[in-house]
Amino acid sequence: MKRFLDLADLEREEVLALLELARRLETRPEPQALAGKILGLLFLNPSLRTLASFQAGMARLGGSSFVITPGQGTWQFETRRGAVMSGAAAEHVREGIPVLASYCDALGLRAFADGKDLAADLAETGFNAMASLVDKPLINLESATSHPCQALADWKTLDELEVPRSGRFVLSWVNHPRALPLAVPASAVHMAALRGMEVIVLRPEGFALPPPIMDKARRAAAQSGGSVRETADRNEALAGAHVVYAKEWGATSCYGDAAADGRLRSELKHWCVRNDWFAQTAADCRLMHCLPVRRNVAVADEVLDSPRSVVQREAYNRLTVQMAVLHRMLKSI
Amino acid sequence: MKRFLDLADLEREEVLALLELARRLETRPEPQALAGKILGLLFLNPSLRTLASFQAGMARLGGSSFVITPGQGTWQFETRRGAVMSGAAAEHVREGIPVLASYCDALGLRAFADGKDLAADLAETGFNAMASLVDKPLINLESATSHPCQALADWKTLDELEVPRSGRFVLSWVNHPRALPLAVPASAVHMAALRGMEVIVLRPEGFALPPPIMDKARRAAAQSGGSVRETADRNEALAGAHVVYAKEWGATSCYGDAAADGRLRSELKHWCVRNDWFAQTAADCRLMHCLPVRRNVAVADEVLDSPRSVVQREAYNRLTVQMAVLHRMLKSI
Amino acid sequence: MKRFLDLADLEREEVLALLELARRLETRPEPQALAGKILGLLFLNPSLRTLASFQAGMARLGGSSFVITPGQGTWQFETRRGAVMSGAAAEHVREGIPVLASYCDALGLRAFADGKDLAADLAETGFNAMASLVDKPLINLESATSHPCQALADWKTLDELEVPRSGRFVLSWVNHPRALPLAVPASAVHMAALRGMEVIVLRPEGFALPPPIMDKARRAAAQSGGSVRETADRNEALAGAHVVYAKEWGATSCYGDAAADGRLRSELKHWCVRNDWFAQTAADCRLMHCLPVRRNVAVADEVLDSPRSVVQREAYNRLTVQMAVLHRMLKSI
Repeated sequence: MKRFLDLADLEREEVLALLELARRLETRPEPQALAGKILGLLFLNPSLRTLASFQAGMARLGGSSFVITPGQGTWQFETRRGAVMSGAAAEHVREGIPVLASYCDALGLRAFADGKDLAADLAETGFNAMASLVDKPLINLESATSHPCQALADWKTLDELEVPRSGRFVLSWVNHPRALPLAVPASAVHMAALRGMEVIVLRPEGFALPPPIMDKARRAAAQSGGSVRETADRNEALAGAHVVYAKEWGATSCYGDAAADGRLRSELKHWCVRNDWFAQTAADCRLMHCLPVRRNVAVADEVLDSPRSVVQREAYNRLTVQMAVLHRMLKSI
Repeated sequence: MKRFLDLADLEREEVLALLELARRLETRPEPQALAGKILGLLFLNPSLRTLASFQAGMARLGGSSFVITPGQGTWQFETRRGAVMSGAAAEHVREGIPVLASYCDALGLRAFADGKDLAADLAETGFNAMASLVDKPLINLESATSHPCQALADWKTLDELEVPRSGRFVLSWVNHPRALPLAVPASAVHMAALRGMEVIVLRPEGFALPPPIMDKARRAAAQSGGSVRETADRNEALAGAHVVYAKEWGATSCYGDAAADGRLRSELKHWCVRNDWFAQTAADCRLMHCLPVRRNVAVADEVLDSPRSVVQREAYNRLTVQMAVLHRMLKSI
Repeated sequence: MKRFLDLADLEREEVLALLELARRLETRPEPQALAGKILGLLFLNPSLRTLASFQAGMARLGGSSFVITPGQGTWQFETRRGAVMSGAAAEHVREGIPVLASYCDALGLRAFADGKDLAADLAETGFNAMASLVDKPLINLESATSHPCQALADWKTLDELEVPRSGRFVLSWVNHPRALPLAVPASAVHMAALRGMEVIVLRPEGFALPPPIMDKARRAAAQSGGSVRETADRNEALAGAHVVYAKEWGATSCYGDAAADGRLRSELKHWCVRNDWFAQTAADCRLMHCLPVRRNVAVADEVLDSPRSVVQREAYNRLTVQMAVLHRMLKSI
């Protein structure tokens, strides 16, 4: 496996094999599998879980890693082609990225959406331009529309909790002080659809997921016997749900317009998951979230502190699935 | 040893055994003792010695580590229970800390005092709330009132310098541009008392150490045959001293009131250790300080650059004693 | 080798031996050569290549490293002797540096020029004061006037590309939004002269390299049969050139005067390397640059994206030559 950029790039069987490998490495550790191997981690945006779990995962497999965070001890990066670099950014990604790749055996790259031009973000213009500069194995640590490590961790979590393969998976929009990117919602619906689930996207008006994201999830559902639809009717969506996957994202009806987005969300304070959301769900319905979560804005304390919440399990599984990705990518090279 | 949060949590014999282990690891290194083990280091406040020496110590024992510094490449953490997280902090410690703990074999946590409410700081309200979220071995990298790694390093330094067990140990308040926490003075007086020394806290009016800190040190002295008292009389305190341990801390008479504290300390410029402080001490009296030290504010160049100063030895011993703590904590798990 | 501070400190044969060792480690890796060894990296200024390549190099040799960046998770450092430390800096280098050195087997230190007093910078006053505090092997990660790791990487790159030993090496000043230090130009001319090349410093009026830098390069040329001269005549300099080494630096005619420097460089926009600079050079003339490079300010896209540009090879060779330095320094201790 040369690149791990999106679950959709893999055959369903390959995804299942990664999950199996992750379980095997948990029960039968291979502390020397990646001895001498080096992972470079380039963060153009902040991180907690990704930053810690990739370093820990490499160490658990006997390898090592280094972290580069432009703007934190390293100068800022320019990403625009043809820029006259007379501003704050001292280094262009066209130099910086291939240079970092030349120091390591695999590179991880985080580059969030710009959040201004929906078409450009959906096309992964920025991430793809950077990815094209890398001739080493490359891992997507979250791009504009994809967070495959999170999706794989969530799938493993669903399996461990024995959530029915054809169960109801409700991705619900929740509130946040400002617009966030589409990567996690896009990856979550695709993952659940590929697992074979009944996927419902629950969101207020103005926050519909863009057609390319819904279409991609529907193609995955077609392979696996799942389904994908969307609604603004909370009661209908939650009835019988096995999973409520809470996630914040920006208004797609006014993408890139912070003021308009802010006016919309100011009326949506009740989109904070509370205990009463689970009145009509399956009794053991789970609350999932990729973290970080704004407590009492996106999800209430009463839910996060209840046994429903499996957010820490999801986060722990970032480590287990990423070790499988690293093992698959680097063991034999 | 599951937790290393305060020297007072250990029996005196356990402390002595850690010091013995530290010495043994210096003479007989065990470069593979912690092979495959991972230490997570979470810094809610800045660090130099702790940051470097824990990474170095894990490496010298064959293990590895990762560092998380909220606000530096990682979003800021919220610590308040029940907070409505609509501000700058994106992640609550109730998620962030258990997640990080799940990636490592032991976690180190630094969280300084808030410096507003003396009772809350003395009760370690903040640190304990975070510590209660960790189910892995946990190391205190400095909390509101305790810095056990520093205390252990200082004890080892006293032993190496053959400072008499019953010698006079003067903890002297020294000046600083602003109020600093009570962790190091509290840990230093407790350590010296537990070692069996004649401990004198020398400080101007308004800077008395709070009764719980003095009482804890007196309990330690009762075990070991030492003593603990306080005074504002510099000449009396320093006469015959074997150690002057200089330390800055905030006024306890107006805790949390920066303006009142500033007025007090503006009259106390002469609380900067100079050569003439040693006129009546033992001839080989040592100057100790946990570092960082404000030169010519807290301690004058003439003292820091003289053979009296053992501040670098103390700092080096951070490495040696922490290796013992890590070895004791992680070798057999 | 106890210190690697400047190529001029080594005999020419020692430099050649380091280059040979770098090539040997590329073809015959020694993944356990530095097992258990620790490199401390102290950055008083930002970094990308140095930060990543030293960590990667230690890992490839089986060792490990830690990074300290004052102001990023660590307090700011004071460097002035005798300072009354009542400002922002909480730690003096007189404590911080020896303490860090005590935790590792070798220390790397980056401390750029102050850029105010040319004589002080040429004398390496600041770096030398810090270096004198270190009793462990020490590596210069870039000081006021020297960047020996870059010079060694450049030399290896020239050899790999089979640039004639006596070929014409043109160090050309190029523009930048502000004055940059003299370390790389000084090291580049010295390196090329020591290699035996015909070195020409091409720069506009006001940007002559200071006599101590030119004299040092001339002494190297005298050893190796090379030569060193300077000119402001671009056409003359570039005719027949085998290498154009582009580099930004501050005006030496008004060193430390940002306004005067800015007025000078505002008239020098045409000092940006473009394809037409190569009209009279050797056909296979190379473009070198130490990176980071301001695209379309210092060097145009058309050159950086052409096969002439070997900037990524130079950056990759930072890794290979530094592994040789680390191996020579640490293998036998």
